[in-house]
Amino acid sequence: MTPEEFRRFGHELIDWIADFRTHERERPVVAGVQPGDIRSRLPASPPQQPQDLRRAFAELGSLLETGTLKWQHPRFFGYFPANAELSSVLGDLVSSGLGQLGLNWEASPALTELEEHTLDWMRELFGLPATFSGVIQDTASTSTLIALITARERTSEYAQYGGGLQAGNDPLIVYCSEQSHSSVLKAALLAGFGHSNVRVIETDDRFAMRAELLEAAIRDDERAGRVPCAVVATFGTTGTTAIDPLDDIAGLARAHGLWLHVDAAMAGAALMLPERRPLAHGIEAADSVVINAHKWIGAVFDCSLFFTRHRDHLVRVMSTNPSYLRTAMDERATNYRDWGIALGRRFRALKLWFLLYSEGVEGIRSRLRRDLNNAAWLAQQVAATSDWELVTTPQFQTVCVRHVAPGMSADEANAHNRSWVAKVNGSGGAFLTPALIDGSWIARVSIGSLTTELEDVRELWQLMRREAEGAAR
Amino acid sequence: MTPEEFRRFGHELIDWIADFRTHERERPVVAGVQPGDIRSRLPASPPQQPQDLRRAFAELGSLLETGTLKWQHPRFFGYFPANAELSSVLGDLVSSGLGQLGLNWEASPALTELEEHTLDWMRELFGLPATFSGVIQDTASTSTLIALITARERTSEYAQYGGGLQAGNDPLIVYCSEQSHSSVLKAALLAGFGHSNVRVIETDDRFAMRAELLEAAIRDDERAGRVPCAVVATFGTTGTTAIDPLDDIAGLARAHGLWLHVDAAMAGAALMLPERRPLAHGIEAADSVVINAHKWIGAVFDCSLFFTRHRDHLVRVMSTNPSYLRTAMDERATNYRDWGIALGRRFRALKLWFLLYSEGVEGIRSRLRRDLNNAAWLAQQVAATSDWELVTTPQFQTVCVRHVAPGMSADEANAHNRSWVAKVNGSGGAFLTPALIDGSWIARVSIGSLTTELEDVRELWQLMRREAEGAAR
Repeated sequence: MTPEEFRRFGHELIDWIADFRTHERERPVVAGVQPGDIRSRLPASPPQQPQDLRRAFAELGSLLETGTLKWQHPRFFGYFPANAELSSVLGDLVSSGLGQLGLNWEASPALTELEEHTLDWMRELFGLPATFSGVIQDTASTSTLIALITARERTSEYAQYGGGLQAGNDPLIVYCSEQSHSSVLKAALLAGFGHSNVRVIETDDRFAMRAELLEAAIRDDERAGRVPCAVVATFGTTGTTAIDPLDDIAGLARAHGLWLHVDAAMAGAALMLPERRPLAHGIEAADSVVINAHKWIGAVFDCSLFFTRHRDHLVRVMSTNPSYLRTAMDERATNYRDWGIALGRRFRALKLWFLLYSEGVEGIRSRLRRDLNNAAWLAQQVAATSDWELVTTPQFQTVCVRHVAPGMSADEANAHNRSWVAKVNGSGGAFLTPALIDGSWIARVSIGSLTTELEDVRELWQLMRREAEGAAR
Repeated sequence: MTPEEFRRFGHELIDWIADFRTHERERPVVAGVQPGDIRSRLPASPPQQPQDLRRAFAELGSLLETGTLKWQHPRFFGYFPANAELSSVLGDLVSSGLGQLGLNWEASPALTELEEHTLDWMRELFGLPATFSGVIQDTASTSTLIALITARERTSEYAQYGGGLQAGNDPLIVYCSEQSHSSVLKAALLAGFGHSNVRVIETDDRFAMRAELLEAAIRDDERAGRVPCAVVATFGTTGTTAIDPLDDIAGLARAHGLWLHVDAAMAGAALMLPERRPLAHGIEAADSVVINAHKWIGAVFDCSLFFTRHRDHLVRVMSTNPSYLRTAMDERATNYRDWGIALGRRFRALKLWFLLYSEGVEGIRSRLRRDLNNAAWLAQQVAATSDWELVTTPQFQTVCVRHVAPGMSADEANAHNRSWVAKVNGSGGAFLTPALIDGSWIARVSIGSLTTELEDVRELWQLMRREAEGAAR
């Protein structure tokens, strides 16, 4: 494609996206397709000769309209928000257009230094001390895997240079809570610890890790000759946005030599609000922290911010130095290839830069506060309405609710809550995700899409009442 | 940013990229900055209030022009090509604009099914059997890590569900060659095998793994009670694009129960050319293969294609199933979250689709053939010119050369070759990467940027002769 063809079709696609976003709110939130529907509309083989892209995309575009869940819809309340703010979409466009590959400083000085600089900005905005260094990873899953691997190598004194986890040493143990994200257990298994060396600590009635049980587990392992290695604490769990007691956990981590990784993937955004920072007291003592800029904050996926107080250790664990990657600048500049798993890297700082310049820090803050207010409004309605329950007091923008009509058994209530959530989703009017918390099926209402206003939450609440109360009659 | 603001500024950025690409060839290939130059031009804090993005980008844009290595330049001959074909840039724009997050089928049916479909297309284009299933990962580094973890779990019969690598079993061993990419050793260390459980097999005079030494190493380990687990063979090494004897290695892998992972990250592109496929005889017996669509093929980074014959096993190793991710479709559709490390995923198939429709399969093929012919032309010049040596006969589009003037000692020759490469790069007229092969510093001329024509290779050759022969006088 020549630059002139790119210019012409590019303008059309910019318009297509602008139109898509403009009309997104008029569409059903859920996709209107069954498994296989999309594939059945695609040809068996790719074209042999160049095609008229405009015509080909006209067809594909209609598949994209019906075949997608509308994550940017004002009544998307599922999972966690995955905001793709339009300015950050443009930042990502510049990234793709430049075609940079940031494997080391020399390979793209601007990519490297803009990433260092914007991560310093974000670190300050989150109130993390200057002892933390930051890098963009793709996802929190990857960030947590990197945290556990660096923890493993710290405790084992770089066993990777010897027999690794196969050296026959006393087993290293990882701790998390029963409300930790699934990626924590996954990371521990991928890093080779083994399921039987992961301790899943029970939570309290607010779904936060019980620090005294963590301490007991650590002591048990120590007595048995095992080696406590890492603990993952969560600031805003996926189920209910519960907050683990970071300060207590940090104290235990320090006393027993564990690496403390804080998974603040979603709720870390709230650290941008000075008034919310006390909730995270203790986070400054973490060894590593992950906060996803691609969730509530608004940078288009993927943009997971990984901070660690152990930059040199991270680099030692992750570094490789083959001749074809060596440059004269290696001692004088940051080589991000040594800060994660991937060698090649996109210019992801651009989407963060665009977002910050377009919204401004205060713009982002007021949006986050709007969402917190909307969540508080919904929580009030739920608390004030008979047969509706708040599963827990919302800490952030996610409201966890149940509807239980008088006389329902526990099984009936579970079936009922799954059923009305399915009806809400099936209506196309909104999208929620159910979750199993403490044996009960609940509905998570995760507020925070860029375009979600109080009016949308009002409409959702009406829809929830209609579907749940109607079915319970 | 409203859709209308997006529309206006989006058109301008499309033009900015079109202009950047149009004028790229007039710019020096290397960046004109020193470490810290970019950061010193950025403000200490991000803006508190929304800024005029147009004005802010005017400044940033000039930093991007001087502060980047021009990977898309016609005289970029460094590393391997990282082609960001402009149609694929538009595909990626649509991906960002849609703001999809493909963690499972329900979260984005179109993302899932377009990925399945285009990966089937690519599998056929590469001539891989239908027993292979494909998925897009970010990089070959990640793909190889996933391969080694799945190998680990196959050999250990899912030790992850028990004590992992800490169970005290006989150590699992990984094999690669001394010319394997640095990401192979890195993956083995990250996966916990440990350096002393990695066997680095010597290569022959063409830099290909010596299968008889691999066999001897496997037998040694077996005799000592260790457990051969995985072998990584390379189709087109990074140093010299050497081809390991895949057929022999596959035979050994089969006989001794090893997982065979083929790293065809770069040269796998040549499998799209039926006449080159015999070079990869044996690849069909691999357990997994990685080919990067974001290198020579032309899809903008990141788009690493990972194929495996063990789809169910991969999913079992990588899967998680918390309640908040469960959907009614789990049994009926593909959930790509269970095919890799990351839970969230971009809509990366779009850039592949755009590239295939814009160039057509035959268009890509003729571009690859053009590059192979240009490499053959350069190899001829080198072979025919006194004091110039081909380090090895080029197998693909990378030509490895040295210039050694009469009477130079080995040390002098090394210093001389590093020096003239630095001069070529410093001139701004072209970019090459040096490499240390078998104790000698050489220059890698990796041909294959989208816009590189024979004329550019001619100019490079003149520049190389001028700098090298001038300095040797």
